[in-house]
Amino acid sequence: MPRVVIVGSVALDDVQTPFGKVENALGGSAVYAGIACSLFSKPGIVGVIGSDFPKKYLDLLAACGIDLTGLETDSAGKTFHWAGRYGLDLNSANTLSTQLNVFENFTPKLPDSYRSADFLFLGNIDPGLQLDVLKKMEKRPKLVVADTMNLWISTMREKVLEVVKEVDICLMNDAEARQLFRTPSIVGAARQILALDSKIAIIKKGEHGAVMFGKGIHFACPGYPLENVLDPTGSGDCFGGTLIGYIAKTNDLSLKNMRKAVVYASSVASFNAEGFSVEKVSSISKKDIDMRYREFGRFVKF
Amino acid sequence: MPRVVIVGSVALDDVQTPFGKVENALGGSAVYAGIACSLFSKPGIVGVIGSDFPKKYLDLLAACGIDLTGLETDSAGKTFHWAGRYGLDLNSANTLSTQLNVFENFTPKLPDSYRSADFLFLGNIDPGLQLDVLKKMEKRPKLVVADTMNLWISTMREKVLEVVKEVDICLMNDAEARQLFRTPSIVGAARQILALDSKIAIIKKGEHGAVMFGKGIHFACPGYPLENVLDPTGSGDCFGGTLIGYIAKTNDLSLKNMRKAVVYASSVASFNAEGFSVEKVSSISKKDIDMRYREFGRFVKF
Repeated sequence: MPRVVIVGSVALDDVQTPFGKVENALGGSAVYAGIACSLFSKPGIVGVIGSDFPKKYLDLLAACGIDLTGLETDSAGKTFHWAGRYGLDLNSANTLSTQLNVFENFTPKLPDSYRSADFLFLGNIDPGLQLDVLKKMEKRPKLVVADTMNLWISTMREKVLEVVKEVDICLMNDAEARQLFRTPSIVGAARQILALDSKIAIIKKGEHGAVMFGKGIHFACPGYPLENVLDPTGSGDCFGGTLIGYIAKTNDLSLKNMRKAVVYASSVASFNAEGFSVEKVSSISKKDIDMRYREFGRFVKF
Repeated sequence: MPRVVIVGSVALDDVQTPFGKVENALGGSAVYAGIACSLFSKPGIVGVIGSDFPKKYLDLLAACGIDLTGLETDSAGKTFHWAGRYGLDLNSANTLSTQLNVFENFTPKLPDSYRSADFLFLGNIDPGLQLDVLKKMEKRPKLVVADTMNLWISTMREKVLEVVKEVDICLMNDAEARQLFRTPSIVGAARQILALDSKIAIIKKGEHGAVMFGKGIHFACPGYPLENVLDPTGSGDCFGGTLIGYIAKTNDLSLKNMRKAVVYASSVASFNAEGFSVEKVSSISKKDIDMRYREFGRFVKF
């Protein structure tokens, strides 16, 4: 029985950066969030793959301790495929192609063993599906965290706002926050997230770190000073997966503990960017993460 | 006798932001840095104004306790004039016009009372002039801080690199650091600054705060979460002026003290963005700054 249920995409990615490229590499929001979460708590993922999904990837996910009962195989089609390229500014990807494939008609099904989980992570899929998964839970989980992405904000803004209303922690990157609330100010966007009933807004800012806003609290975690970013794909999902994984492990929803969770999330997200696909995040140890966590403490001390 | 000598531009600015506009407002790097510095230590500015420079601005600078012996009047011309506009993304200005006027043939002259100052701030003027001012000092100051800007990096890159070599603290914004060292990585750029003999590299990142790099040390200060930025013009100069003003006041060049200086600098820079021209930075108190300084401490605590 997973402690954290994670819904999101499972993908095969083609990624080019100035430092190399990979084809049909393991990717997708549920995959990155799941692997990152598994460093702290047992995740179960909800998603779909096609007939072409390599067994070695399933083995890798299982080896990370991820429950795959909720990972459906649709043999009539191919796995969701994303191709993107990063220029020298590694902060944002150019999408070259998106083939939804089996993801196009996907309706998440929750195995019984998932339905009573206390922690739910809604990765960046169609906001209608995010709400649907939340409804299918046996009881309201203790903590629901949702991510989103620019595509849904452009095409289904009202639904995204509904998700913001329903969840406890609303996670998005700075460009998405600006776009969703039509404001140049991250602070203004965060205030609107809180006004919509989300208890916490966490804005991810890539190399600039992350900021957390709650009622009367503000927390800022800097970016880890990486010199060699190989491939930032999935770092935002790793952030989300670690965040909920750490909170689930400690079972402590206090704001104090959430600050720690944000720093752990930043630590794991930074490691992920140092390798292509899930190469790095699937090979780091608790000790590596703790070391970087302590470094963050030194970075901000004055 | 000023404790800190500040060389830079003295300007009349036309600024438009989505929240208002000003015309022929007091501006320029020496002005912003000087006012900010005056909150901690006595600055003397080196610069030039034309016949059109309003007396009320001279009065304001004098009222801040700024030594104006080094401020030359060239009655044959008009004051340096800059016009810029900010869009909803207040992170970068579009320059509408730059009229150098009396600044075009300016050669900084150092009054005798300035030549033995222990602290020197080289604001973002022509790097040749920055080096010239440094040479004119009676002895090498205890601390030299230099700022630069994209214009000089495009037109006089080698000279800018010479300045980097000569000074103790090299200050620039993230876009300038990337441009100067032709790298997408701020960390890589900072490493190159240190390799060029500058002891400290401080990269200003606007709303994302500032990062400081030294031998074996890294310090990150987040941006202050401002909801209502009115006009960010001069905030980078306020950062620099506060930095050197605080270090001069405490007369403590330790890295530990420089971390504090960066936080004070961020505090003053954030206040500056809350008003047009020098409106806000010239009206804040030591108590305001201290309050924000302590807030920064709470923002990063985990």
